Amino acid sequence: AHIVTLPGDGVGPEVTAAAVAVLKAVAARYEHVFDFDEQLIGGAAIDACGEPLRAASLVACRCADAVLLGAVGGPKWSDPNAPVRPEQGLLALRAALGVYANLRPLQVHPALANLSPLKNERLHDVDVLFVRELTGGMYFGTRTRSDDAATDECKYTVTEIERVVRRAFELARGRRRQLTSVDKANVLETSRLWRSTVQRIAADYPDVRVEHQLVDSMAMLLLTRPASYDVVVTENLFGDILTDEAAALAGSLGLLPSASLGDGRRGLYEPIHGSAPDIAGQGVANPVGAILSAALLLRHSLGLEAEAEAVEAAVDTVLRDGPHSRDLGGSAGTAAVLAAILAALD
Amino acid sequence: AHIVTLPGDGVGPEVTAAAVAVLKAVAARYEHVFDFDEQLIGGAAIDACGEPLRAASLVACRCADAVLLGAVGGPKWSDPNAPVRPEQGLLALRAALGVYANLRPLQVHPALANLSPLKNERLHDVDVLFVRELTGGMYFGTRTRSDDAATDECKYTVTEIERVVRRAFELARGRRRQLTSVDKANVLETSRLWRSTVQRIAADYPDVRVEHQLVDSMAMLLLTRPASYDVVVTENLFGDILTDEAAALAGSLGLLPSASLGDGRRGLYEPIHGSAPDIAGQGVANPVGAILSAALLLRHSLGLEAEAEAVEAAVDTVLRDGPHSRDLGGSAGTAAVLAAILAALD
Ligand SMILES: CC(C)[C@H](C(=O)O)[C@@H](O)C(=O)O
Ligand SMILES: CC(C)[C@H](C(=O)O)[C@@H](O)C(=O)O
Repeated sequence: AHIVTLPGDGVGPEVTAAAVAVLKAVAARYEHVFDFDEQLIGGAAIDACGEPLRAASLVACRCADAVLLGAVGGPKWSDPNAPVRPEQGLLALRAALGVYANLRPLQVHPALANLSPLKNERLHDVDVLFVRELTGGMYFGTRTRSDDAATDECKYTVTEIERVVRRAFELARGRRRQLTSVDKANVLETSRLWRSTVQRIAADYPDVRVEHQLVDSMAMLLLTRPASYDVVVTENLFGDILTDEAAALAGSLGLLPSASLGDGRRGLYEPIHGSAPDIAGQGVANPVGAILSAALLLRHSLGLEAEAEAVEAAVDTVLRDGPHSRDLGGSAGTAAVLAAILAALD
Repeated sequence: AHIVTLPGDGVGPEVTAAAVAVLKAVAARYEHVFDFDEQLIGGAAIDACGEPLRAASLVACRCADAVLLGAVGGPKWSDPNAPVRPEQGLLALRAALGVYANLRPLQVHPALANLSPLKNERLHDVDVLFVRELTGGMYFGTRTRSDDAATDECKYTVTEIERVVRRAFELARGRRRQLTSVDKANVLETSRLWRSTVQRIAADYPDVRVEHQLVDSMAMLLLTRPASYDVVVTENLFGDILTDEAAALAGSLGLLPSASLGDGRRGLYEPIHGSAPDIAGQGVANPVGAILSAALLLRHSLGLEAEAEAVEAAVDTVLRDGPHSRDLGGSAGTAAVLAAILAALD
C-alpha cells in the first residue's frame, strides 16, 4: 500500500512520525508492505515554495491509497490580510480527494473520565459518531471582499447533501440505528434543503430512528445529554464547531482521530487537534489522535480490520495504564507514549 | 413608559405574563407609570392573520420605549417547506428596531452550581457577557432555492462590524477590560474583515486586552476554561450557537435573559430559552429568564438602575432559597416562583 504523509505545521511532524512508526510496526508484524511518501503542506509548504500545497504534492495524494496528515496553520501565517494561508492547502486537498464525509468518533475512555469537563455520570456511555460534510458549504463558496464589505456564500446541492446523509444512514445501520441531523432550518434556506433531503432519504431507512435538531439546541444538548446520541450528521461549518465542542468532553483534543472518505476507498486521515504552536518542537505532543487516525486508515482505506483493532487495543491499554502525556495530566513525552503503544502492540 | 409585549408561542405567554407582573409591581412600588400594549408575533400571529408580524404590530414596537418578547416557533409551524415561518417575525422585528447588539450575560448562581453539566471548580467565577451581532450575517443575507440547490449569503459591512465591536469594547471598559473576539478568519472572508476591523478599533481602547479565537476552538474553551472570559463578541450565527452552549453551563436555559440594543435607548428584551412546546400551557415554565429580561429593560431602556437591581436581588433570593421550578430540580410552578419573587421584591 502506498501512503502519502503530510506532516504540516506545529506539532504535526511529531505526531505524524509517531503514527508512521505504528504503521511500520503493523507492516512488520502482519507482513504487509507499506511505502511512505512525505510531502509538504500548510505553512511549511508556504515557507518552502510560496504555496500551501504544490500541484505535484496534490497529484501524489491523488495517486496514494491513503493520506495521513498532521496539522496545518499557526500564528506565523495568521495575518487576516495575508495573500496565502496554510488552511487553503488543506481545503484544496479535501476537495481534490473528494472526501465529502468526515467521520469523527467520540468516546470517553473510562480511565480518563476524570479529565472531562463534564460531570455527567453516563460519560462512559458516550459513543457518538459525527459525520461532518467536508467539501461543501461556506468553506467552498464564492467569497468577495472590498474595502468596506465582505461576503461568503453557503451553497449546497441536493447531490452533496444526499451522498453524505446516505453515508450517515449506512453508518447508523452498523451501530445503534439512530441518526440526529443538525441544521438551522428555522433561518437558513440551505438548512431547509438539508432537512427535507434527510426526510426524503429517511424513507429508505425505516429501521433507523431519525431526529432533527437546530444547531443552537444541539450545542446545548451535547452537554446535557451526550450519551443519548449515536450518529450525528451535519453540514461543514456546524460540524466544525460541534465536533470541537464534543471533543472537549473526551478530556483532551489530543486523543481524537478523524477519517475523511469519498466514494472510493482512498481516504484522508488526521487527528482533530490543531498545530498547537505553543508546544511544537518540544517532544511533548500527544500522538494518540494521530495514531488512532492511522488505525482508521488501516480500517477504511486498506481494509485491514484486525490490524486496526490491534492498534486501537494497544492505545486503549496505554490510556488505561499509562504512561500519559501532559494533556492527560502525566509527564510522558511523545516518544515515551509511542514506545508504550508499540510495546503493547507486540 | 410605554412597553409593547409580544408573548408569542409555547411558554412565551406564560413567562411574559410573569415578567409583566413584576414590572407592574415595580411601577407600584417606585411610583412609575408603565403602560402595556400586547401584540401578536410568531406562530400565534400566523394562526390569527396569516403573517408572523403584522405591519401594525411592527409600528407599535417602533413607537414603544421597550419591547418584551416571550418566544416564537414550535413544531406546528416547522415544516421546512412552509411558505411562512414564526421566526421571520422575530428577524423582521430585530431588523426594524435596529437592535444590532444582543447582550447575553452568563453567570452561574452559587446555589445552582450542582445543576451545571460542568464540574469546573471555578464555576462560581464564571461571569461572561456575550455580545452577539444581531442584524447582519447569514440571518439577513440573500437566499436562493431551486429544486436541486440552495444558497445563503453571509455579508458584513465594516459599519455593521464596527458598531457592535465598539459597543463590546465600551462594555468591557465597565467590566474586567478583557475582550475576546470570535471568528473563523482562517476560512471566511467575512471573518477576516471582522478580525481586521477589531484589530483597528482596538487601537482606540488601549486599556482593554483583546484576544482572537476561532469559533471551533472557542466552542471547546467555553467548556475547559469558562471562568477566563469577560466580554465575548461575535457575529450573528456564531453567537447563536456559542450562547446556547454557554447557557447550558448555568444549569438551565430557563434562567437567562437577553437585551438587544441599537443606537438609541429603545430595546428588545427576551429570555434566551425557546418556546418549549413540550411544557407549554402547563404552568410549569421557569419565569426567571423573562423576569431578568424585564430587569434589563428597566436598566437599559428606562434608565431605572435601582429598580433593575431590586428585581435581580429578588430573583437571587428565590434562586437561593427556592421555591424552584422543575428545570431546577424543584416542583414549583410558574405562579409559585413568580409569587416568591414578588414577595422578595417587597
Ligand atoms: C484548519 C481548519 C481549516 C479546519 C477546519 O475548519 O475544517 C480544522 O478546524 C478542522 O476542523 O479540521
Ligand atoms: C428563534 C431563532 C430565530 C433565534 C435565533 O436563531 O436568533 C433564537 O435561536 C435566538 O437565539 O434568539
